[in-house]
Order: sequence, then C-alpha cells, then structure tokens
Amino acid sequence: MRQAGRYLPEYRSLRQAARSFLELCYTPELAVEITLQPIRRFGMDAAILFSDILVVPDALGCAVRFEEGAGPRLTPIRTQQDLRGLALDGLQERLAAVYATVRALRERLPEDTALIGFAGAPWTVAAYMVEGETSKEYARARILARREPKLFGALIDLLVEATTTHLLAQIEAGAQVVQLFDSWAGVLPEPEFVQWCQKPAARIVAALKAARPDVPVIAFPRGAGALYPAYQNAVASDGLGLDTAVPLAWARRALPETCLQGNLDPIALVVGGRTMRAEAERIVAALAGSRFIFNLGHGVLPETDPDSVAELVGFIKSLSPESA
Amino acid sequence: MRQAGRYLPEYRSLRQAARSFLELCYTPELAVEITLQPIRRFGMDAAILFSDILVVPDALGCAVRFEEGAGPRLTPIRTQQDLRGLALDGLQERLAAVYATVRALRERLPEDTALIGFAGAPWTVAAYMVEGETSKEYARARILARREPKLFGALIDLLVEATTTHLLAQIEAGAQVVQLFDSWAGVLPEPEFVQWCQKPAARIVAALKAARPDVPVIAFPRGAGALYPAYQNAVASDGLGLDTAVPLAWARRALPETCLQGNLDPIALVVGGRTMRAEAERIVAALAGSRFIFNLGHGVLPETDPDSVAELVGFIKSLSPESA
Repeated sequence: MRQAGRYLPEYRSLRQAARSFLELCYTPELAVEITLQPIRRFGMDAAILFSDILVVPDALGCAVRFEEGAGPRLTPIRTQQDLRGLALDGLQERLAAVYATVRALRERLPEDTALIGFAGAPWTVAAYMVEGETSKEYARARILARREPKLFGALIDLLVEATTTHLLAQIEAGAQVVQLFDSWAGVLPEPEFVQWCQKPAARIVAALKAARPDVPVIAFPRGAGALYPAYQNAVASDGLGLDTAVPLAWARRALPETCLQGNLDPIALVVGGRTMRAEAERIVAALAGSRFIFNLGHGVLPETDPDSVAELVGFIKSLSPESA
Repeated sequence: MRQAGRYLPEYRSLRQAARSFLELCYTPELAVEITLQPIRRFGMDAAILFSDILVVPDALGCAVRFEEGAGPRLTPIRTQQDLRGLALDGLQERLAAVYATVRALRERLPEDTALIGFAGAPWTVAAYMVEGETSKEYARARILARREPKLFGALIDLLVEATTTHLLAQIEAGAQVVQLFDSWAGVLPEPEFVQWCQKPAARIVAALKAARPDVPVIAFPRGAGALYPAYQNAVASDGLGLDTAVPLAWARRALPETCLQGNLDPIALVVGGRTMRAEAERIVAALAGSRFIFNLGHGVLPETDPDSVAELVGFIKSLSPESA
C-alpha cells in the first residue's frame, strides 16, 4: 500500500526535516529514499512509488497544501470559472520531479523488485477538488455532480486525460505496473458509480493498454461492494484491488480470471502475532491456486510496529518459496 | 430514516429550548412531538420513534453526553473492569421514558400510521462504547475485538441481551415494527462481520420472533456490500435495509423473498426536483412487483428543504395509490 512510511522512524525523521509533505513528493532524492526505506527493511517483491494522488490536481492548478493534523487543503473547484483556471498543458513538465524519481528508482531498486506507479482515479480526485479538503461523505462533490452534471463531467473528463498522461509518463520513466486508486468509490449509488468511477476507469485503462499493452494495470475501486464484478468486467484491468470488506470466496467465484490483490485488514497488522498470521493464512488459503498479489486492503496504520511488517513479509515468503 | 427532524425548523426550535439532545429522548412529551412533526407535515405511512441508539449504553451505565458539533461522548469501555461497571438489571426502568413515548405515540398517531421502534445493533453500539466517541474507522474497537476477543465478546453478549430487552419493551409498549441499525457493519472483514454483526443480529431476531412472531423486524447492516445475502440468510429478518451503494437488481436476484427497504441517496433529496424524482423512479422500477418499503439509504441531511420531502412523499404516493 502506498501509505509507505508513516510507521517507519526513518520516514518520520525525513518528514520532520522537510518543510512540507509535498516537498517530499517533489524532491527526487527524498522521494527515492522514502520509496526505498521499506524495501531495504523488508525486501518486498514490489516497491510503490512515494508520491500522492493530489499531485495531479496540484499540477492542474489547484494549489494543494498539507496542513499538519488537518489533512490536505486545495483551492476548491465548484464553478465553470474555477474549471477554466485549470491547465492540462504542461502537466508533465510540472510533474517532472515525479518522473525523475521513477527513473532514479529504476536504477536504485534491485533488478527483481518491481516498481509500481500510481494515480488517484478521477472520481476520488474530483471529490477532493470540489470539497477543497478531506471529508467524511463528500456531500458537496456529490451535490455538484447531481446539480451540474455537465460541469462535473467536464472535470472528470479533464482528470481522465490528466491521469492517463501522468500514468503513461510514469511508465515511460520506468514504472513496471501502475495502480489506479478510487478510494471513495463506495459512497456512490450504482448509476453514479458507473458514470463517475467505472466509465472513467475503463477509459484510462483502454488508453494505457493502447499505448503500453505490456504494462499491467491494477484498479482499486475501494468500497465497491457488490459492484466489484461489474466494474471489473467493464474496466478490464489486469489486477483488481479488494478492500478489507470483500468476501474472498465470492470475489474468486465472480472473477475467476482476474488477478486479485489486497484484503488484509491493517488492524491485523497493528495487533500482530498469531492474529496477523491467521488473517494472512485465511487470505492465502482463499486465493491459493489462482492469480493473486498479497497485500493489505487499505494503508498501513501509523501505529503499526515495523517488526510486525517484517514478520508478515517473512511469513508470506515462507508460504510462496518461488518468490523468496 | 431515524434522523427525523434536523431538517425541520419546528424540530430545531425544540432542540434549542432543551438542555441536551438526550433530554429530548427522555422527555416523552418532547419525543412524542418530534416523532409526530414529520407525520403531520408529510403523512408518511409509518412513523419512526424519536430516540437514539445510544440510549442503550447510557442505560447500561456509559454516561452518554452529546456535545454540540462534536457528536456523542461516552465513558469508554476497554477493560474487564469497565465492563463489570455495566448493569443489565433495571435497564427497562432506566429506559421507562422511551416506552412511555411509544405508548403515547400509539394513542396520538393516526390508526393507519405504523410506529417503528428501533435499536442499534451490538457491533455499532460496542464500537461507540469502546471508542467513547464517534470515529472514522473505529480502529480502537477493531483492535480491542482482535486483541481481546473474550472481553469484546462479553460486551457483545451483554448488548445482545440489552438490545433484545429494549426492542421487546418497545413492542410491548406498542411499536408495530422494529428496526436494528448496524451503521458500522461495513468496516469489518468477512470473518469478523459474521462474528460481530451477523451472529448477534441472528440471536436478537430469533429472540424477538420467539416472543412476538407477529411483529416484523427490519435489519440494516449498512455497508455490508457483497455480504448482504449471506447476512440476510443467517439473520432471517422480515425486512432488510439497503444502503445507497447496493445495486438493486443484484439485491432483488440474490434475495427474491425478502422485503427490501431503502437505497435512495439523501443527496438526491438535497438536490430535489427532477433529479430526486428520477432517483425515486429508478428504485421503484427496480423493485416493482416485489415486496419493498420505499425509504432513504441513509439519514435525511440537515440541509434538505422540507418542501422536497413533501414532493417526494407525494410522488411516491402517486405511484402506489393503495397506500395513499
């Protein structure tokens, strides 16, 4: 999971020395180091780029700030005029530091450690852009989407293009897999889920596949519940991230061909020990014999003991000797 | 939905005159008036008792306070000693005001307006009790459930008994339907969902049915996603509340015999007009010809215009003349 770091003391000391969270994302030397920290400690099979889903709205002109304790703040986008202030041209130049990080990582990572790039999906990023901050229910974004579907649709269209550009640039720089995070997919009713999550993701995956059919794409519509199978059939990504609430036997039956990823409860990692191993075993048992990527169903919690992560990685490697 | 009132000016003026939110719940005269307010305005087919799911922990000894803007605060229950401080004996006496409200409502409501009683489900109430406040992810409760499953299980057992007692007392006082709200069911992985949501709900429904087989029970495991059908098959309630994210065609196929309820996005009611009517029509069309209760998938939002509620009720009645 991408929230690499907050549980590692070596991350927290880099964070304290930086002026802001975004400075970490935009300074290749620091972003490379933070990406490498968990790999150095734990030797996972894949590294995920240290970055943030909000670098895209930041590069579009939304002026993102991260305030300590309060989460991100953005200049809100709520009118046609706000939308006209955003610029897609030059996006790659403004995110050059991210691609420099990817290039440096490809040189610094062990040969057999895959590098995963990522972006936020249009609905989740648009929800942040309309609210201007994090929110429990994203009511303002959901109201705007219903009151002004043309305006909201234009914002989603812009984000489909920006996200595709950003992911392709990460691939060109050396990312070997890319992941699309739709963290707030679970708050929408079915018709809006199809319109604002499923269709935009399908467009992004199709564009990526047209340009780079060799690079696997993992989609993660967190909270999609019973809509997971329809989403996957429409989006046709190579892999599908499952949140902690998804019943695995059901997902495996509904999607026999898809490479599934995720599902481990981050709470199990906080508790550690036997509880954690039992949960990991349950997931491996449910998905054994089919294509899957062992992962959490949500980010690592800050209170997690790094020793538990080490124990988990060792435990999983002991179950799959070919990847050890 | 039970969050009756916050969008009605006549509720807000009663709320301002009271010392606390719980005073409204514990003063039959006020709770009766608040329950009647939406019925008087809109003439729905059923009224839901004005109360709160936290009256049960309050009566068990958790000293609930509602702080303006901050939500509820409870004395947290995190140890065996905390748990020993809770008392099931005398619960009905301490909640006598709630049952007096039900009795008075049965006299004051029109003959053909059903009265719905309710309670929080054990997992949701336990999550509040462990946290001591509302929380985004209920991490402390989930950690305690995994670290000390015996302690947490004892708390759930206590809540199964208290909830059954509280619902039966509402039925004896005149509630004609009861609803069990598991608002935080969606944060648990499948095995814990079965253990802490599904099995406790099944025990409560079985106990209610043994005592009063004539009274319908509606269960609402909000956020259960793909676990809805297994939950319903195990719990065997008469009705099932669906949150806004549940795809209706899927739910209807998976549960052909169950009376379904809910699903309307409260945001559609805030937006009103054509959007609202289109959403309502979609739900009616998907569930037409089978047993269902038209309702929201979550509470009415405070910014909702009462005129939109009136329009919605009129629109639904125009579609189902037999209930007009």
